[in-house]
Amino acid sequence: MGGELRYMEERPVDDPREPAKGIEQAKDLLRSFETRAKRRRRPLYGIGVSFPGAVDPRTGDCLLWAESGWKRFPLARSLMEAMDIPVLLEEDVRAEALGEFWFGEGQGVDSLVLLKLARGVGAGVVLEQRPYRGVNGLAGEVGHITVDPYGDRCSCGRVGCLETKVSVPAVLRKARELLKKNPDSPLAREELSLESIYRAAREGEKVAREVLEQLVAFTKVALEIVVHAYDPDIIVLSGAVVEAEGADILLNNVQLGDFPVEVRVDVRVSSFGKHRGIIGAAASVLHRLIVDPQAIEG
Amino acid sequence: MGGELRYMEERPVDDPREPAKGIEQAKDLLRSFETRAKRRRRPLYGIGVSFPGAVDPRTGDCLLWAESGWKRFPLARSLMEAMDIPVLLEEDVRAEALGEFWFGEGQGVDSLVLLKLARGVGAGVVLEQRPYRGVNGLAGEVGHITVDPYGDRCSCGRVGCLETKVSVPAVLRKARELLKKNPDSPLAREELSLESIYRAAREGEKVAREVLEQLVAFTKVALEIVVHAYDPDIIVLSGAVVEAEGADILLNNVQLGDFPVEVRVDVRVSSFGKHRGIIGAAASVLHRLIVDPQAIEG
Repeated sequence: MGGELRYMEERPVDDPREPAKGIEQAKDLLRSFETRAKRRRRPLYGIGVSFPGAVDPRTGDCLLWAESGWKRFPLARSLMEAMDIPVLLEEDVRAEALGEFWFGEGQGVDSLVLLKLARGVGAGVVLEQRPYRGVNGLAGEVGHITVDPYGDRCSCGRVGCLETKVSVPAVLRKARELLKKNPDSPLAREELSLESIYRAAREGEKVAREVLEQLVAFTKVALEIVVHAYDPDIIVLSGAVVEAEGADILLNNVQLGDFPVEVRVDVRVSSFGKHRGIIGAAASVLHRLIVDPQAIEG
Repeated sequence: MGGELRYMEERPVDDPREPAKGIEQAKDLLRSFETRAKRRRRPLYGIGVSFPGAVDPRTGDCLLWAESGWKRFPLARSLMEAMDIPVLLEEDVRAEALGEFWFGEGQGVDSLVLLKLARGVGAGVVLEQRPYRGVNGLAGEVGHITVDPYGDRCSCGRVGCLETKVSVPAVLRKARELLKKNPDSPLAREELSLESIYRAAREGEKVAREVLEQLVAFTKVALEIVVHAYDPDIIVLSGAVVEAEGADILLNNVQLGDFPVEVRVDVRVSSFGKHRGIIGAAASVLHRLIVDPQAIEG
């Protein structure tokens, strides 16, 4: 299977805290794509939307988009109004998993889990060649599994979630915490980032080594959670934590292998870069057209 | 759907450490069932086996049965030799999940997870009405997810697995540990068991309360792992930890509810009692006959 990005247009949203306004802007963008396709006599089969918040898998309602303060909102329905073609809404990590399944690292496999370690942590799950969403749309929310009952408080309100260990903010917070106790560290003299931490760790700097050590341990925990829950053919890692410059020092140190039985699992890093959202959205349209056509009716 | 236990026969195994001997005894038992069915002119559609170790989902080989020291062994193939009807092998927790799906608490649902808190801890996963096994047969091995990186060593060799918190041995170990520091506890005067701990906790005894408190916290973690991984319609709890006399004090104290979105999930305790293995094995035959008939050929 192949695909090509033919045209792209980016528009910032005026006020991300206002769902109704954002939707109007999005509709405007969708209509412009539709018009453009008609003018060029190119068939447009559907519009895929990769959405960064929680979605009700039955209704396509937005349930929560914490970052922008959205609560329940009829997202799919609102986007669909006034469109002549289907609009397919998928949560971003799930869409990205479908992107890997159709166009990326997971082509031809039966089961794939995309594990994203970014600002948040979550998994997009494709089992037996279908995206798996769960009853409430929570399947794959592995970032909120408790991995340290004595750990830090998570943005979700609970303590010691995986996200408090392997997300970008978690890594930076841990580094800052250690730098307070080690103000003479050379790391304290530069702007703190994943790149600077990975670089310093490679040079053997103490604080960075300690941050890396914890990150290695919990990245291993994260991968083992995926294996113990889904046992997929392939785990595709994505997100800044594994894609930042120098992240190979993390990946080279994560050793999977303490399973009671021999485990075949292919662990790779996504190669999609910043267009992963667009590719994932397109893949979700393709997936429903080919695999799940009845889902496209509504 | 209904079912009835028509006849049962139990035989102890001479030497559980010898797979070949155990298999010969099992075959003998299987043949006696076949003969009995023929004599009574009752059709026998298949023989279901609920096996308490790890099974390769493709070959039906035993991969590991730690308790009896079994390693890789061609289990399904050995049982199938000399039988005229299909022999279906399923890991015990997975078979029990199918039992609940066909005859028990989960009838009519789309997705069910049986979470067993017994000597070991594991989940049997039925998604979209099919048992989900994973590539290596590890799907549902949630007992070996790390939930406390500073915790006790697990029988699997790693540290802080869920099984070190919510299994029967884990609860008893925790109680013994606390009793060492509190030798005057009334709990120290009786034989330690789940029942005695639950009873003492109800009476407000300090050590038992502390054991219960930890068990409540990690049972909540276990349920949340199931929701975050599979987000099923129903979670059926089974095993001595939740079925011992007085276990309602545990279940009444586990409050699910810290999810970022509203979660519908039905949590129930299995009502099968000690015949759950037999019911599960029968359900796995029924399941393949009705849902997955091609699987019965091989």
